[in-house]
Amino acid sequence: MFGRTYYCGEITEKSIGENIILKGWVQKRRDLGGLIFIDLRDRSGIVQVVFNPDFSEEALRIAEGVRSEFVLDISGTVVERDSGTVNPNIKTGKIEIHAERIEILSSSKTPPFMISDQTDEVAEDVRLKHRYLDLRRPAMFDTFKMRHNVTKSIRNFLDDHGFLDVETPILTKSTPEGARDYLVPSRVHEGQFYALPQSPQLFKQLLMVSGFDRYYQIARCFRDEDLRADRQPEFTQIDIEMSFMSQEEIMALSEQMMAKIMRETKGIELNLPLPRMSYDEAMNSYGSDKPDVRFDMLLTDVSSLVRDSDFKVFSGAVQSGGVVKAINVKAAADKYSRKDIDALGNYVGNFGAKGLAWLKVEEGELKGPIAKFFNSEAQSSLTSTLHAEAGDLFLFVADKKEVANDALGALRLKLGKELQLIDESKYNFLWVVDWPLLEYDEEEGRYYAAHHPFTMPAREDLDLIETNPAAMKAQAYDLVLNGYELGGGSVRIFEKEIQEKMFTLLGFSKEEAEEQFGFLLQAFEYGTPPHGGIALGLDRLVMLLAGRSNLRDTIAFPKTASASDLLTEAPGEVSKDQLDELNLQLKEKALKK
Amino acid sequence: MFGRTYYCGEITEKSIGENIILKGWVQKRRDLGGLIFIDLRDRSGIVQVVFNPDFSEEALRIAEGVRSEFVLDISGTVVERDSGTVNPNIKTGKIEIHAERIEILSSSKTPPFMISDQTDEVAEDVRLKHRYLDLRRPAMFDTFKMRHNVTKSIRNFLDDHGFLDVETPILTKSTPEGARDYLVPSRVHEGQFYALPQSPQLFKQLLMVSGFDRYYQIARCFRDEDLRADRQPEFTQIDIEMSFMSQEEIMALSEQMMAKIMRETKGIELNLPLPRMSYDEAMNSYGSDKPDVRFDMLLTDVSSLVRDSDFKVFSGAVQSGGVVKAINVKAAADKYSRKDIDALGNYVGNFGAKGLAWLKVEEGELKGPIAKFFNSEAQSSLTSTLHAEAGDLFLFVADKKEVANDALGALRLKLGKELQLIDESKYNFLWVVDWPLLEYDEEEGRYYAAHHPFTMPAREDLDLIETNPAAMKAQAYDLVLNGYELGGGSVRIFEKEIQEKMFTLLGFSKEEAEEQFGFLLQAFEYGTPPHGGIALGLDRLVMLLAGRSNLRDTIAFPKTASASDLLTEAPGEVSKDQLDELNLQLKEKALKK
Repeated sequence: MFGRTYYCGEITEKSIGENIILKGWVQKRRDLGGLIFIDLRDRSGIVQVVFNPDFSEEALRIAEGVRSEFVLDISGTVVERDSGTVNPNIKTGKIEIHAERIEILSSSKTPPFMISDQTDEVAEDVRLKHRYLDLRRPAMFDTFKMRHNVTKSIRNFLDDHGFLDVETPILTKSTPEGARDYLVPSRVHEGQFYALPQSPQLFKQLLMVSGFDRYYQIARCFRDEDLRADRQPEFTQIDIEMSFMSQEEIMALSEQMMAKIMRETKGIELNLPLPRMSYDEAMNSYGSDKPDVRFDMLLTDVSSLVRDSDFKVFSGAVQSGGVVKAINVKAAADKYSRKDIDALGNYVGNFGAKGLAWLKVEEGELKGPIAKFFNSEAQSSLTSTLHAEAGDLFLFVADKKEVANDALGALRLKLGKELQLIDESKYNFLWVVDWPLLEYDEEEGRYYAAHHPFTMPAREDLDLIETNPAAMKAQAYDLVLNGYELGGGSVRIFEKEIQEKMFTLLGFSKEEAEEQFGFLLQAFEYGTPPHGGIALGLDRLVMLLAGRSNLRDTIAFPKTASASDLLTEAPGEVSKDQLDELNLQLKEKALKK
Repeated sequence: MFGRTYYCGEITEKSIGENIILKGWVQKRRDLGGLIFIDLRDRSGIVQVVFNPDFSEEALRIAEGVRSEFVLDISGTVVERDSGTVNPNIKTGKIEIHAERIEILSSSKTPPFMISDQTDEVAEDVRLKHRYLDLRRPAMFDTFKMRHNVTKSIRNFLDDHGFLDVETPILTKSTPEGARDYLVPSRVHEGQFYALPQSPQLFKQLLMVSGFDRYYQIARCFRDEDLRADRQPEFTQIDIEMSFMSQEEIMALSEQMMAKIMRETKGIELNLPLPRMSYDEAMNSYGSDKPDVRFDMLLTDVSSLVRDSDFKVFSGAVQSGGVVKAINVKAAADKYSRKDIDALGNYVGNFGAKGLAWLKVEEGELKGPIAKFFNSEAQSSLTSTLHAEAGDLFLFVADKKEVANDALGALRLKLGKELQLIDESKYNFLWVVDWPLLEYDEEEGRYYAAHHPFTMPAREDLDLIETNPAAMKAQAYDLVLNGYELGGGSVRIFEKEIQEKMFTLLGFSKEEAEEQFGFLLQAFEYGTPPHGGIALGLDRLVMLLAGRSNLRDTIAFPKTASASDLLTEAPGEVSKDQLDELNLQLKEKALKK
């Protein structure tokens, strides 16, 4: 085997006259009057190879047998193309290779789909079943190169800042708090199970107890949840923890890291510090805890303006403790018919809203079926509060505050996309801060940790822990990019007493807390530094930076929405011997299958 | 919280006069006539902090309450020590800190063992249960820093050589060939299971089919085996694969990587190319496929010299198809009494040898109970073949070749250690090449793959695949360091027909091969490049470079020989609800517990 001298896409005019050796796949073969042209592809790009009896009759003869996706080993000379045949669409379009030798290393059946970035025609399950072909598409390779470069930036940054890459266990203990665990039966310990980690949270905290001071890991995490379009059963998180650092210091370091990533992978210079928004403002003005701040159309509370109006839907909502909130869709009055607005009404229904009221702004007055309920004073206060101009469209939801925020927040995003208000070239980072510590689940009548049970309350709120826990804020922060949650972090509880109180608040009995988290509580008794950290979703970060719209495109061998790998056909059946060794049996229903 | 200005161990005389802030753990507190001395420790080392009423009465008062392993935040001034109190044993021994402020960030109970590198007194299970304390020992941190630096070297090398870091699935398909899989029941697909990967072998080959060309991953792998001292249920492998490269090219690149690691982590310059030895020579001369070449004492086949001797043990062994092999333990005749040699005889019994014969070399003749069976000609041929000098000790095993090699190979290592023949400062790398492709299991009457089923036979042996498969060599190579197998690799089969023949040889029916490896065979039909790679054990590499004798010391949260995590108490019991969701039940025996 002769050694490759260049990748296909990296040959430039500088090499004209050189004898070179290439290895690659046949993208396309064309026969033209006794000549054969092959577009040879490797991960770097494509180059045109010409077979001509004048260069080598034998090579031409072999090239005749070549088909798409054959793997070739070619020797030849780099030649400048005639000006008439220059191809400006590819990097190597000014040159071509005159082939003197060709060896077919591997042949190919006709693939089930063309290797091309245009895949709209190909069903995703076909692509996933033949993932090895799907990954040949240039856009896919570029995404994984981006992923490589992102992790490289991260590792270099963290290494420069004294962080140690430490691996934590994949076979660990089940902690029912949180999402559902994947379980792994133990063969040695009958009837016992490992769990795959939902995150390395406790291990990284223990490393702080160990004095490791600064830890990171590009960590695989697992959640056995019902999958949505943007979830995977296994995902990767940039997991960071540090000791003796305040929330401000952790955030400053995290955004420096993000700035380096953006500089090195996108050539974009971030302005630091990154903007911040309180959780309350995010919910109130954007109807979301991960606001997309690339466009405005903020949610405005107009409750006080409509509390006494004759429109009972509005006044009734406010008087029963709810709110009336509005968005002003600028210059959209003419773009949305009554029918269109009805459809938007159905859309907000998905978020629990009972209806969508609207008004159109005309010169000097508001129009629409409900306009009559508002006298000119009310109309003018609405117009001024919503910064209205002629041609604007007001959309209202009157409901409980949470429902109004959810519904209008979702509607805002939908309209932002429809009306192309979003500059897709922007990368708008945002910290969301001042999170509540707890969420109250009314159905279950209990608190859940808004972040996780190890998050430190704001120091000034600590005395509320007994009296008014719902009012406590957390020392937590989420990093949001373009409306996606990249991840979040917190300062952690490092005092045993506070951690125990937190478990109690979350409904753990003393025995349950001891059973599940005893080792952590015990560790806290032996000199624990103040510590905190952050965890960012690598898959999602890469998705956004590579301009993809699907997490599956950022994972080499992803799973479907039913958690299947269509390529290897996992999960699959196992033998009875394997189960016997684990002392397990399937229950009736599955056995029957 | 005030920001730290230095790590404890990094303050030098250059900082004399500076006001500094330190955070750390109390290694030791001493009270001396109204003064308090605290040795403050962080991951970088130790510095002495002095509390004196002249610096701060309040600080002194607080320091009185401080105990071992308390976490402190201290402000003070760097001061040169009096020449009489300089401590040459620590890096910061020429300075001390005069404390002006101290805050106790966290207190500590008396730990179950001292934080010290001297742990001989502490049972390992106590250390593992309190791993967060065990990891505070400086030698432990240094090991994980070494691990960090080793992976950094590897990543930088591979990045510079165009390798892409790609993550492959942890939830994958069970392949019963090889070791036992860890299984993960699927909740969505009733009665079906994922398996944790024993290695990313098939995925990395598929990435080559995808044209990724050069892949690497620091990959977690899993084997549910009965654990030995140097095995862990999860371990980490440096996993590398590349396309269009010959065995020579892959080995050359791998050893360049190893040279970079050694240079950057140990300051040692390797001589490349690394030495090579054939599998046959390794077995014959060292009785091992991973010879420790830091010392000689080679195994010598003396069958032809003793075939006709009157000593029936020797002549009988040779005449019935076995061998007589010897080692010459230089200058050891006086060191081993008959009783000592009897003990060595018992030792080789562990490897199946029926006995150990011996002769001592004296000036001009051989002595010992069996000397009488050898006439002077035979004695002189033994003496010259074994390069004997007066005072040497010959040890013989007469048995089947495999038994003789095993037994003498193990004995050689034992004696090498006992007689301190091994220079522990040496790092002797060695490639073992020319492996057989197959191993024949006489009990089961079938072949196993010596490497794995995807290893390419030597091209020149391909026609033996039908006629004499046992004689086929593999395009495989193992990298050995100081008698440990660091890992190995091979050129892979990339032609469907050869792979199918290989599966047949290994006893797979066509259906079984299709069922388990159909996706690979199918992928090979769509243009597969020649490819190969290597996988090296990171845990073991770090163990050797950090001078540790135990894999557990290189893993932050390791498991015991019964695959338990003593810290988190994994594995553990799970709820019936969790099992119900997985449609599983424990069998009778476990339920009773």
